[in-house]
Amino acid sequence: MDKEDLTRMLSISRGDEKAPLVLKNANIVNVFSHEIIKGDVAIYKDKIVGIGDYEGVEEVNLEEKFLAPGFVDSHVHIESSMTTPSQFAKVIVPRGTTTIIADPHEIANVKGNNGINFILEDSEDLPLDVYVMLPSCVPATPFENSGAVLKAEDLKEFIDHERVLGLGELMNYPGVVAGDEEILDKILLAENKIIDGHGPIIENKELNTYVLAGVKTEHESSTLEELRNRIRLGMYILIREGSAARNLTTLVKGLTKENIRRCLFCTDDKHPEDILKDGHIDHNMRLAIKEGIDPIDAIKIGTLNAAECYGLKRKGAIAPGYYADLVVIDNLEDFNILQVFKDGKLVGKNLKPLFNTTEVDTSKVKNSVNIKKIEKEDLAINLNSNKARIIKLQSHSLVTEMVERNVNIKNGEFQYSNEDILKVAVVERHKATGNIGLGLVEGFKLKGGAIGSTIAHDSHNLIVIGDNDEDILLAINELEKIGGGITVVSKGEVLKSLPLEIGGIMSQQSVEKVSYKLKDMLKLSYEKLNVSKGLDPFMTLSFIALPVIPDIKITDLGLFHVPSFKFIDISV
Amino acid sequence: MDKEDLTRMLSISRGDEKAPLVLKNANIVNVFSHEIIKGDVAIYKDKIVGIGDYEGVEEVNLEEKFLAPGFVDSHVHIESSMTTPSQFAKVIVPRGTTTIIADPHEIANVKGNNGINFILEDSEDLPLDVYVMLPSCVPATPFENSGAVLKAEDLKEFIDHERVLGLGELMNYPGVVAGDEEILDKILLAENKIIDGHGPIIENKELNTYVLAGVKTEHESSTLEELRNRIRLGMYILIREGSAARNLTTLVKGLTKENIRRCLFCTDDKHPEDILKDGHIDHNMRLAIKEGIDPIDAIKIGTLNAAECYGLKRKGAIAPGYYADLVVIDNLEDFNILQVFKDGKLVGKNLKPLFNTTEVDTSKVKNSVNIKKIEKEDLAINLNSNKARIIKLQSHSLVTEMVERNVNIKNGEFQYSNEDILKVAVVERHKATGNIGLGLVEGFKLKGGAIGSTIAHDSHNLIVIGDNDEDILLAINELEKIGGGITVVSKGEVLKSLPLEIGGIMSQQSVEKVSYKLKDMLKLSYEKLNVSKGLDPFMTLSFIALPVIPDIKITDLGLFHVPSFKFIDISV
Repeated sequence: MDKEDLTRMLSISRGDEKAPLVLKNANIVNVFSHEIIKGDVAIYKDKIVGIGDYEGVEEVNLEEKFLAPGFVDSHVHIESSMTTPSQFAKVIVPRGTTTIIADPHEIANVKGNNGINFILEDSEDLPLDVYVMLPSCVPATPFENSGAVLKAEDLKEFIDHERVLGLGELMNYPGVVAGDEEILDKILLAENKIIDGHGPIIENKELNTYVLAGVKTEHESSTLEELRNRIRLGMYILIREGSAARNLTTLVKGLTKENIRRCLFCTDDKHPEDILKDGHIDHNMRLAIKEGIDPIDAIKIGTLNAAECYGLKRKGAIAPGYYADLVVIDNLEDFNILQVFKDGKLVGKNLKPLFNTTEVDTSKVKNSVNIKKIEKEDLAINLNSNKARIIKLQSHSLVTEMVERNVNIKNGEFQYSNEDILKVAVVERHKATGNIGLGLVEGFKLKGGAIGSTIAHDSHNLIVIGDNDEDILLAINELEKIGGGITVVSKGEVLKSLPLEIGGIMSQQSVEKVSYKLKDMLKLSYEKLNVSKGLDPFMTLSFIALPVIPDIKITDLGLFHVPSFKFIDISV
Repeated sequence: MDKEDLTRMLSISRGDEKAPLVLKNANIVNVFSHEIIKGDVAIYKDKIVGIGDYEGVEEVNLEEKFLAPGFVDSHVHIESSMTTPSQFAKVIVPRGTTTIIADPHEIANVKGNNGINFILEDSEDLPLDVYVMLPSCVPATPFENSGAVLKAEDLKEFIDHERVLGLGELMNYPGVVAGDEEILDKILLAENKIIDGHGPIIENKELNTYVLAGVKTEHESSTLEELRNRIRLGMYILIREGSAARNLTTLVKGLTKENIRRCLFCTDDKHPEDILKDGHIDHNMRLAIKEGIDPIDAIKIGTLNAAECYGLKRKGAIAPGYYADLVVIDNLEDFNILQVFKDGKLVGKNLKPLFNTTEVDTSKVKNSVNIKKIEKEDLAINLNSNKARIIKLQSHSLVTEMVERNVNIKNGEFQYSNEDILKVAVVERHKATGNIGLGLVEGFKLKGGAIGSTIAHDSHNLIVIGDNDEDILLAINELEKIGGGITVVSKGEVLKSLPLEIGGIMSQQSVEKVSYKLKDMLKLSYEKLNVSKGLDPFMTLSFIALPVIPDIKITDLGLFHVPSFKFIDISV
């Protein structure tokens, strides 16, 4: 800090001169003393300089509304909002989130270090503090081709970046426990930083080993037993409430006055429509309060605790010297976010952003669809008999079932029929290898078209499902044309596309626009293509290619049987 | 960490091989979950690698004794033990303290950076983690001559030392609040480190300003109101129980389940005999438990909370990856310390140290008594009349009273009489300036001799009190001869001296020996010299020269009136 600045701040704090800005008559949420204290908050530039009775050049009368510290999302993949950091900021900041700890795992799988750089650059000047955990598992599995392979030496260039806090979720927890060399290199790289975990299920000695390796946090806990055992070993628990994974209602039942300091909030993955509908970390807090958690504790979990866990200095509380990241809330029951201040500036009001963002260079993360020319014959599925192994979808679940079905064949080649058996193709789209994984899917129920997407966890290859090869090809070509995104085609016509020009997974448009378009396309899928209402076609598509969720998945390398961790033939 | 080491640790943690050392059947105090958990603690080298059910090459059966993390003294002046760091370690480590945060304020006042270096060097290889806060107020006041003046630029050489955590207690709190330039320089030097406070009494805007300046901790709180107001503003409260200042019994009444995480324990100043009699941080814990604090909370205050506040990594808890700093306690009521492990090694048993220390170079901190030759006439007090201003001592208090008394004079010079009015001389002893401050003292009651010391807060000049100039001179000469320390003389004879060869304030002998000698000298003072039993003569002497405690004190520059912050004449 500048000495002149410090001198001025002290003078204002003493009351010798008026503060540039004073928030008057607030009910201040004190996360240190666990009290609500009436008073004013004096602000100079980006910092709080005094609490009590202050006069300001500008005064904002908060009329006894509640004032909380800015919220922290302790673990989030911005990519799940399908927008860039700057667009993401525009919806979460007005909802009270002023700090996020992002793991750019998805864009790194597509664009490697260029992807990480994009997240850092696009978030540079936001009224949102974006910290980054370096993706530790790129690719997520060895059973697919991603756009990049990041080893410890690749991550090294970021480790001393001022906004890089450490190593992102160590999903390969068996590898950590086993002491896999490449993982140890990454752990040693982040030795003096923070390491996030992703190690559900494991207990006892394995859990000891995982923690011993340096893993400090866990956001995958879904049971009270997992929560308790992890807190006992010193882990911080990130209580997650996202779009797919919702653990809050269960986990808050395990909180005590004594262990609460070891808990944080996160969203992990939250889709645009859910953020707009429910909110962001404010939603976690609202829900926790509804579940009986003391509102001050709920706020503490999402502020002070996160700052302590991640070593965020001068953040997470309302106190002299702290950044003036402040959230005005109507009351602690309804918990409506009225205004948000970041670094002393009003940046959100009535859930609307009051700031503009500037575009950054996106040349290294655009044009991410790089495929070899595909012909209709490349989509042929040849079978030994009319019996085939099928990916059977289940309603409202990411888990699939492997079933065997009789299908029509002609000259040994699978033929579409009127039955609910669709073709799915995963096209490697990063390095134009020409790899295509082909499979058959039951339960999707689409008729007369195809749906394609370049969001396909975690390698984000191009995936298309359809009931005829022409529309599948059209979808592939459309996705190539728009540089990645989501498309719905029918009978030779593109009905609608959502371009996701950043890596094929993020849009530079607003969350509202993306959400609106998605809704439209969802409607088309259900109404024009008769997709089963029991599933979200885009989310289902994005997870069919993730070879870590049971039972049967498909990657660009073929059909994959998860329980046996082996590729498997479609032919029985 | 070494990759090979990490691999080995993981292997032991998994249970693939036996741990070198396992503490079996412990009642483990879990400061994270707030539970007592039965189990084993597996140790490899200096770290805990697993908790649960483990086998060891060496196994120590703890027979259900309690196992707590090593204790932390968050603020201590080692010098108050009157011994060196290594001797100090020998008494506090077997009592459970494995980490201290030391402010070498006293030795720095005598020897400047050489003094700080000595503390760092002498504590380098101890089974005690000695962190250092850089003394921020050397000299403590402008009203005296100390052995050194340390400005921000002087402290700079230490700021990046791995064991330097920041800036020591900012005693000049009015200067901080006023934005004094020299203090701001020190604050800016420690901007990204921790700054300890010493700011009692101030409240409201002044307290805001003090906190805003970056002050993170407070160990001077003595009332519940002070405690609460400081916690509200984000300060950590160091609950002090030392020799002179004892705040624990009062302060623990202000603890709640919610604010307890903001509290730590410290001793600040604890004399040799008190450490031997009561203990160290174990005493704070025992006392807190006696006062009704949940034992696990009491342990948490002295372990996890300190580690969090000062950012001590892998310390303050029993968990995988944490340093194996462990304390074996008989039970949580009696709270007797049975064994202490530091970095996985047994270093204390039944309050006895099980380690040796090595001597370091002391040449730069020895021979600290540097005075100009003093003659009897230098001790003459000339008065304008027979009325003089007297320093009146009060029983069991460091506060003095200014009174006026009729005294005998001859040729304008003060004459000793049979009344209880003694002469006190403060001799500048660092730079041989020849400065002598002379005053008169009531309430000490000494007869037939003199007592002298080179411990005189905070500048540690040479101070002597006596009822005749010959013995005063003898005491001065004796202290010069022994290179500093404490001496009791009577009728031309040195009865006993305690040499404090390190800076005139610390001995290289054991705490036990120092304590034994002091007791002996105390007995001589009371029995041979008839010193008032209402005071400890050595402690009283050491505070008569501290010009910050009301009402009237004496420095090498003369008699000082504290309320008006001015020097004052003895003559009325």
